[in-house]
Amino acid sequence: MAFFTLKHTDQHSRARAGVIATDHGMIETPIFMPVGTVGSVKAIEQRELIEIGAQIILGNTYHLYLRPGEDVLGHFGGHHRFISWDKPILTDSGGYQVFSLKELRKITEQGVEFRSHIDGSKHFFSPERVIEIQRCIGSDIMMVLDECTSFPATHEEAKSSMDLTLRWAKRNKDAFKSSSPRYEHAQYLFGIGQGSTYKDLRTDCMQRLIDLDFDGYAIGGLAVGEPSFDMYDIIDHSTNVMPPNKPRYLMGVGTPENILTAIEMGVDMFDCVMPTRNARNGTIFTTRGRMNVRNLKNKFSDEPIDPGLDLYASREFSLGYLRHLFTVGEIVGLQLATLQNLGFYMWLVREARKHILENTYSLWKTSILETIK
Amino acid sequence: MAFFTLKHTDQHSRARAGVIATDHGMIETPIFMPVGTVGSVKAIEQRELIEIGAQIILGNTYHLYLRPGEDVLGHFGGHHRFISWDKPILTDSGGYQVFSLKELRKITEQGVEFRSHIDGSKHFFSPERVIEIQRCIGSDIMMVLDECTSFPATHEEAKSSMDLTLRWAKRNKDAFKSSSPRYEHAQYLFGIGQGSTYKDLRTDCMQRLIDLDFDGYAIGGLAVGEPSFDMYDIIDHSTNVMPPNKPRYLMGVGTPENILTAIEMGVDMFDCVMPTRNARNGTIFTTRGRMNVRNLKNKFSDEPIDPGLDLYASREFSLGYLRHLFTVGEIVGLQLATLQNLGFYMWLVREARKHILENTYSLWKTSILETIK
Repeated sequence: MAFFTLKHTDQHSRARAGVIATDHGMIETPIFMPVGTVGSVKAIEQRELIEIGAQIILGNTYHLYLRPGEDVLGHFGGHHRFISWDKPILTDSGGYQVFSLKELRKITEQGVEFRSHIDGSKHFFSPERVIEIQRCIGSDIMMVLDECTSFPATHEEAKSSMDLTLRWAKRNKDAFKSSSPRYEHAQYLFGIGQGSTYKDLRTDCMQRLIDLDFDGYAIGGLAVGEPSFDMYDIIDHSTNVMPPNKPRYLMGVGTPENILTAIEMGVDMFDCVMPTRNARNGTIFTTRGRMNVRNLKNKFSDEPIDPGLDLYASREFSLGYLRHLFTVGEIVGLQLATLQNLGFYMWLVREARKHILENTYSLWKTSILETIK
Repeated sequence: MAFFTLKHTDQHSRARAGVIATDHGMIETPIFMPVGTVGSVKAIEQRELIEIGAQIILGNTYHLYLRPGEDVLGHFGGHHRFISWDKPILTDSGGYQVFSLKELRKITEQGVEFRSHIDGSKHFFSPERVIEIQRCIGSDIMMVLDECTSFPATHEEAKSSMDLTLRWAKRNKDAFKSSSPRYEHAQYLFGIGQGSTYKDLRTDCMQRLIDLDFDGYAIGGLAVGEPSFDMYDIIDHSTNVMPPNKPRYLMGVGTPENILTAIEMGVDMFDCVMPTRNARNGTIFTTRGRMNVRNLKNKFSDEPIDPGLDLYASREFSLGYLRHLFTVGEIVGLQLATLQNLGFYMWLVREARKHILENTYSLWKTSILETIK
């Protein structure tokens, strides 16, 4: 079976339904990928991820390289076995994390030198090195090392940054071709498009990535401070350049509205810390809207957390109880809110896919956004 | 069916197997009760409590009175419905918590005035009031308000404190008799024996409680700093005075060894924060011993957390992974360690009961303690 199969494109929009086939199982797209930065998706057990319909989770090369480290991951036979997760894993290359370190990193042609956020120790990532680490992690889908361009950037700065990303992309691909999986399953490599908010650069970057022939293509460097209009404009522009026969991944985005809008533009894959992080802050996403569970109006509410979802947290517990758990600071509150939020995100992309297959995506999207905003 | 049925006493020790019948279901004794102080057992979901075999959980009157408060609990139709738990609940009266407040409380004949640990507001608990609050909570088993005698105490101090506890016990019982359950299920009331480490006082207190005719009897005021020898000595002495046809509850104790020793002396019920609190500190109880999961020697361990238990956390995850979760501070580490520790405690009392029924309790206890210490 091909790595990616495009099953259907909605008749009234560019929204796509597809299937990604990995040795750890199928992924039905469009898909949301819960973020398990450093070896667990925060406050939710692996079996609960399966329960809410997660088909693939993220790991982060930068974090996993620092802890537990390659020695442990290699000893355990890769990240799947280490964390007892036998469905697909995608790893971000660490480019974005290193970019976020700001004062602690130095970028050169060769790669990026950075200091650990944990103990200040010095480390060096190159395109070759992040392939090697991801071979050790054993992620099903690996990402190239790129330079995430800051916002705002002049055209010149953005072009220079993009050119570096492209030279690194070539080295990533060469390192990928000249190495093999360490475990018993195939690994795939995605390229990452940069170019800030400049459409000519976005086009140029994506076309040159396509020439390098990756297994999938990501839109990087968005949701870094640019106006929402620009973000959507660049997504819309990028998906028009991206090949239809490869998966399209919008990195680090976003709200339910962001995701539904990007799906309509032809994006297939998403990841974001929003559902998990917001859960821990007491903000929940439900089929009747987003809310702060701590709100006093929930104090006496015996309504289920989300009557629209048939999930354990959603239907078994009341808003009043969830509010109480947050008020008194109980860990179970974080667990139930995380189950609810990730359950909601997984439900959202499943519904999206269903409506794409029924050619009713745009209609559904417009009406559902009125309810869940 | 009687509230308590003594099924069997081990032929070679005083260990007992019984059944407590409540409107929320049966409890097979000896039993360990996970502590859900303020409305959840920390870091474990209600369905997971069922999964590991919990038959009854604790709540705390002092904490639940402060938050969520009687207005919320009454609105929800009691604590069971509020927290979505339909098995039995026992509530401690708050005597021990108020005792722990030290500088924030003033004890008089009438009751105890205390300041909230949350906002310093003034409150008053009397024997009558804690019955009223527990009627509102709707716990299946309520506890009397007692005065937990400090350790050390002179004989005179202990006697004076015990006499107050007994005068309160009478008022608790009167308030219980003259009130009714607020919801559709029966509630029972246990008396609490005090008397510090003085056997004559312990005997006197228990006999006068028995005259008041409670549904069960607890041994209070232990594990408050006295030597282990004295604690065992008082437990042994107390169970000899306690009637055989009522459940016997040792409050706030303790380690696996404490529990197994007290079972041998004829105790039926236990509660302790140890399995849950230790879990959150990274200390786990397993069938092969207690250990600090952070220990460097676990770094490369691909052994299951506890190969001796057939539970999700025990069998699906490695010690190396659990150590990693604690090292990086992931919430899932608290969840898995809590599942393991409570799963272990529930397993321990199930095994104890099995061996009591087989008349092999003491033999089993001696051999298992060599393994799990």
